[in-house]
Amino acid sequence: MQQILVDKHIRVYVVDADHIAEEVGLGHTLGTIMQACFFALSNILPRDVAIQHIKESIQKSYGKRGEAVVKRNFSAVDLAVARMVEIKVPAKVTTDRVRPSPLGDLGRKPSEFVEKVTSVMLAGRGESLPVSAFLSRVDGTWPTGTAEWEKRSIALSIPQWDPAVCIQCNKCALICPHAAIRTTVYQAEAAPKAPAGFVSTPYKGKDFAGQQYVVQVAPDDCTGCGLCVEFCPAKDKSNPRHKAIDMVEAEARKPGERTNYHYYLSLPPPDRKKVMLDVKGSQFLEPLFEYSGACGGCGETSYVKLLSQLFGDRAIIANATGCSSIYGGNLPTTPWRANAQGRGPAWSNSLFEDNAEFGLGIRLAVDALKGRAERLLQSLAGQVGDDIVGSILNAGQHDEAGIEEQRVRIVALREKLASVGSPDSATLSGLADYLVRKCVWIVGGDGWAYDIGYGGLDHVIATGLDVNILVLDTAVYSNTGGQQSKATPTGASAKFASSGKEVPAKDLALLATTYGNAYVARLAVGAKDKQTVDAFREAESWHGPSLLIAYSHCIAHGYNLVKGPEQQRLAVDSGLWPLFRYDPRRAAKGEPPLQLDSGPAKAKVIDFMRNEGRFRSVELADAKRFARLAQSAQNQAEQRMSYYQQLAGIRTSHPGDAE
Amino acid sequence: MQQILVDKHIRVYVVDADHIAEEVGLGHTLGTIMQACFFALSNILPRDVAIQHIKESIQKSYGKRGEAVVKRNFSAVDLAVARMVEIKVPAKVTTDRVRPSPLGDLGRKPSEFVEKVTSVMLAGRGESLPVSAFLSRVDGTWPTGTAEWEKRSIALSIPQWDPAVCIQCNKCALICPHAAIRTTVYQAEAAPKAPAGFVSTPYKGKDFAGQQYVVQVAPDDCTGCGLCVEFCPAKDKSNPRHKAIDMVEAEARKPGERTNYHYYLSLPPPDRKKVMLDVKGSQFLEPLFEYSGACGGCGETSYVKLLSQLFGDRAIIANATGCSSIYGGNLPTTPWRANAQGRGPAWSNSLFEDNAEFGLGIRLAVDALKGRAERLLQSLAGQVGDDIVGSILNAGQHDEAGIEEQRVRIVALREKLASVGSPDSATLSGLADYLVRKCVWIVGGDGWAYDIGYGGLDHVIATGLDVNILVLDTAVYSNTGGQQSKATPTGASAKFASSGKEVPAKDLALLATTYGNAYVARLAVGAKDKQTVDAFREAESWHGPSLLIAYSHCIAHGYNLVKGPEQQRLAVDSGLWPLFRYDPRRAAKGEPPLQLDSGPAKAKVIDFMRNEGRFRSVELADAKRFARLAQSAQNQAEQRMSYYQQLAGIRTSHPGDAE
Repeated sequence: MQQILVDKHIRVYVVDADHIAEEVGLGHTLGTIMQACFFALSNILPRDVAIQHIKESIQKSYGKRGEAVVKRNFSAVDLAVARMVEIKVPAKVTTDRVRPSPLGDLGRKPSEFVEKVTSVMLAGRGESLPVSAFLSRVDGTWPTGTAEWEKRSIALSIPQWDPAVCIQCNKCALICPHAAIRTTVYQAEAAPKAPAGFVSTPYKGKDFAGQQYVVQVAPDDCTGCGLCVEFCPAKDKSNPRHKAIDMVEAEARKPGERTNYHYYLSLPPPDRKKVMLDVKGSQFLEPLFEYSGACGGCGETSYVKLLSQLFGDRAIIANATGCSSIYGGNLPTTPWRANAQGRGPAWSNSLFEDNAEFGLGIRLAVDALKGRAERLLQSLAGQVGDDIVGSILNAGQHDEAGIEEQRVRIVALREKLASVGSPDSATLSGLADYLVRKCVWIVGGDGWAYDIGYGGLDHVIATGLDVNILVLDTAVYSNTGGQQSKATPTGASAKFASSGKEVPAKDLALLATTYGNAYVARLAVGAKDKQTVDAFREAESWHGPSLLIAYSHCIAHGYNLVKGPEQQRLAVDSGLWPLFRYDPRRAAKGEPPLQLDSGPAKAKVIDFMRNEGRFRSVELADAKRFARLAQSAQNQAEQRMSYYQQLAGIRTSHPGDAE
Repeated sequence: MQQILVDKHIRVYVVDADHIAEEVGLGHTLGTIMQACFFALSNILPRDVAIQHIKESIQKSYGKRGEAVVKRNFSAVDLAVARMVEIKVPAKVTTDRVRPSPLGDLGRKPSEFVEKVTSVMLAGRGESLPVSAFLSRVDGTWPTGTAEWEKRSIALSIPQWDPAVCIQCNKCALICPHAAIRTTVYQAEAAPKAPAGFVSTPYKGKDFAGQQYVVQVAPDDCTGCGLCVEFCPAKDKSNPRHKAIDMVEAEARKPGERTNYHYYLSLPPPDRKKVMLDVKGSQFLEPLFEYSGACGGCGETSYVKLLSQLFGDRAIIANATGCSSIYGGNLPTTPWRANAQGRGPAWSNSLFEDNAEFGLGIRLAVDALKGRAERLLQSLAGQVGDDIVGSILNAGQHDEAGIEEQRVRIVALREKLASVGSPDSATLSGLADYLVRKCVWIVGGDGWAYDIGYGGLDHVIATGLDVNILVLDTAVYSNTGGQQSKATPTGASAKFASSGKEVPAKDLALLATTYGNAYVARLAVGAKDKQTVDAFREAESWHGPSLLIAYSHCIAHGYNLVKGPEQQRLAVDSGLWPLFRYDPRRAAKGEPPLQLDSGPAKAKVIDFMRNEGRFRSVELADAKRFARLAQSAQNQAEQRMSYYQQLAGIRTSHPGDAE
């Protein structure tokens, strides 16, 4: 790199844009600063004229958001130009440093594919790959778990754990969008020697009594969003500003934490069979979705990660186009991964307009293959033994222990099949994994679920078949730049709809309850994480369609996402987003199927609205209109809550035959 | 025709297939009989072999429907062959009769288009029309009201009215699928002399006191379905088998009734402003949908005709593909028509997948044109006068009288505009009709509304805009041959789904109520006609989206449709199809928005099911499965009714701003 600079007589300038952004109150938004530097240096226009144009453009773009926002950006421009510094390039190469590998150092050798394909793409030279480099993937599949090799190391501050203050609730890990802060328990005596800086503490719970407990950051995968600290409920009593985790300056800590994290990953994960499937326990399960390219502070990915922890080792996922398909399946790396046993989600992306149907097709295919395996198993009972056939066909598989037992049976079955050696036994051996309970997840955003893919989603629910639908609801088309969807709340602005939405949001959750055959829940992990985890578990265990609508804060909402959980709480507390679960099993027991999980309103909708740019811009443009829309939103919230409260009293048993 | 027979040495046979069908109990189904005749004559196979094959085919096709059905068809085959008679063709032409015009005799000259185009197509020679014949329709529109020229005259029996028994309820006209039985009141002294056989009687109501009342059949347009008689509530006390209308042998009565009907049509219709918009009054309004090619006894067209009577003179209709687009807009003739003032519905057909959106586009266009007309009107106030501008802009138009007053103002405005003579005044003159309140109707079947077009329908409801949606719900894809839709009830068979539907029908009405901004009603005109007429009126008057889901009996259900109203009553009485209206205006008044219009169940669902072939075929194929499905349907009905009863108690005022 230095050679190129010397050869081409390149002049180099640096600016500490991040500090400037923080100083003037722009958070991590660097666009304005870098633009100012570019025009100041490029001489396309005289510097003063260019700066003047930039400021006019700022006035035009942000004027609607108020004078404070404009001033912040003006300051950013002025400081950018003032603080930009030239680095003198020497006459000849002086450095002995070499460009690091595009692959992170994981302390082990990458796979051939990662070495020969992923690394080339990470280095920005994907166009140089010959077709022959892909010949090992002729079936169209793509290796998973490659995101771990892409060490972006972008965090300027990372969390630091204080075991003395920690209450071991695991909420930091739950909320982390990037699986970059992790918790585990382990048998210290059985573990290899820990690095000097590795911190652990005796575990306080009874489930893993006697083991050591750890909260560990992945320093090169953390984005520094701060959600873990914000969500941490444990404060130091003597110093309320100090929590069980705090954000600290990253660079100095990274080498040590890198070593610690390597060690952490070498620890065997806790036994799934013994983990309680609650908020805390879920975070002892290995995330099979990690280090995605989602925005720092993303509100969607904690749900996706939770799915991967609870069910990832037997999940098949149909993912609608949208943010979740981009961070879930973009190149060069893939955040979905398998565990040490090679079990992980199968994942594919389909279109906005047919993703629910795509997932339904997967369900039908899985059921058909399972049916075929069962028939083959019965026909081979003479050769492999009635006992194993009976125990496989009648296996409960109601919990992790039951599923593990079935997996053990399948291993034994395969051994017996190998000795049979007939065409049927070979076929069954190939299909035998379908005898372990799979779960099909259909995942997408509100643009898919409420709008473009809704016809199919409705059709899939109507079939009564066993699929789980997860809607990552940002209430806006996030990935395409923020257009209004039917999930957009009253009063919110959106791209091409900046005056604020006039009509109420569609109540997709309530719509789905009218079928009576679907498990439906409305979630906000930031507001009530227990309800979220319960709902995921209940949804998966219901042998019919399930629909989870998960409130997801998003950069399109226009505020610092570290406040995402707080806004989620306000959405719930104001009655804008009441939490509920509708369970057909409750109806069958004679209980009201709809269970309201949030109480009467204790905040005003306008308090929620004023915290977000998507609403504030409407107020700044037309205060009278905003007041009317806010009142409308308030009325809607009150009536919705009243309606839900009454619905929650309705008992009606559901036809048992629909299960 | 006789010349051709002579020249080509054609042999002619006749068979009285209709009488055979009636005799053996096949109703009006002639297929089996005509097939037997064809094979008996064609010598493709030896007659005995052919008959044997037909019977085997009958056994195969109808075996599932039971021995009685098979026997009926066997008898039909045997009688067809036995009763077929050869008509001796003379050696030379002997007749002096000429082939009648393909156009009926309406006692007036057809339009040039009907004469030059429609008549040629009716004669089956449409392929001979040159492109130049269509040059008068370069805008793609097609003349309406041409079905009156297509006199099929297919009824073997037609209704005969007995004024002595009649209670003047007009229900016969309401239920008639073909607008082929009509009712009116008229000033006898002002009318021309009636033909000798024309029957009228003094009108009993106060609204048109002193006038004469008539029930008149259109003998050549009647299909002989018998619904009018079945639906007639007025029985002769001394002879309960004699009603106010009875079906009588048609041929002898046709000439006289033809004359009477010509005279009837010459009577001026009652003044719309004075007609009560209830069941009875609606049938004093001119149908602007008449003589369609729908099946005899069709359950859809009475709703469509009612729409045309109540709103046809200012309706714009977007019609989804399906039966209603075929009988509504097929060639060569068009049942939609204008009244004597030239006012009638504008109608167009769009696709299954976008008809709701198509209708929404019409609404937006009408509103945009109205807005433009209003702006032009304001800008021209100086020239045309503040008074007329104010009265037009502030016109209530809440009822027929208000609409008529606005039409008078528009005529006056046009006169003033003509004298202004500016470009703006000419534009306004062209747009002025948009200042009269229009209503947009979006019409289609359940295949469209529940399935293929549902995504769009949902989207349109979510907009909150003023459109009226009429779903003609036969619970099956009728026009394409009877495939299952999401409206298909549990236990019903359908093409490609003959084992009987396992899952419950989708509750589209309930789904739509979750928006809170839509007027929603579930109707069954055969069960409760007053609720149907009320719902149409309330839907149109609600300035937001309205959704009417209209139970429509259909030949695809597999029974004699003369029993359609009875089955509709059973559907309602068993709780399978509870009637309700959900009105956001009630919520705003603090009343429960959902109003249940049918009472607790007083029949069993299985009684409804056993009357229809779509369910019976399931029972005959697998009685145990049928019993399970029937029990499931019964459970669903009970729970649905219980749920509705509880919903009907929920009060929640609706945000006033959503109107």
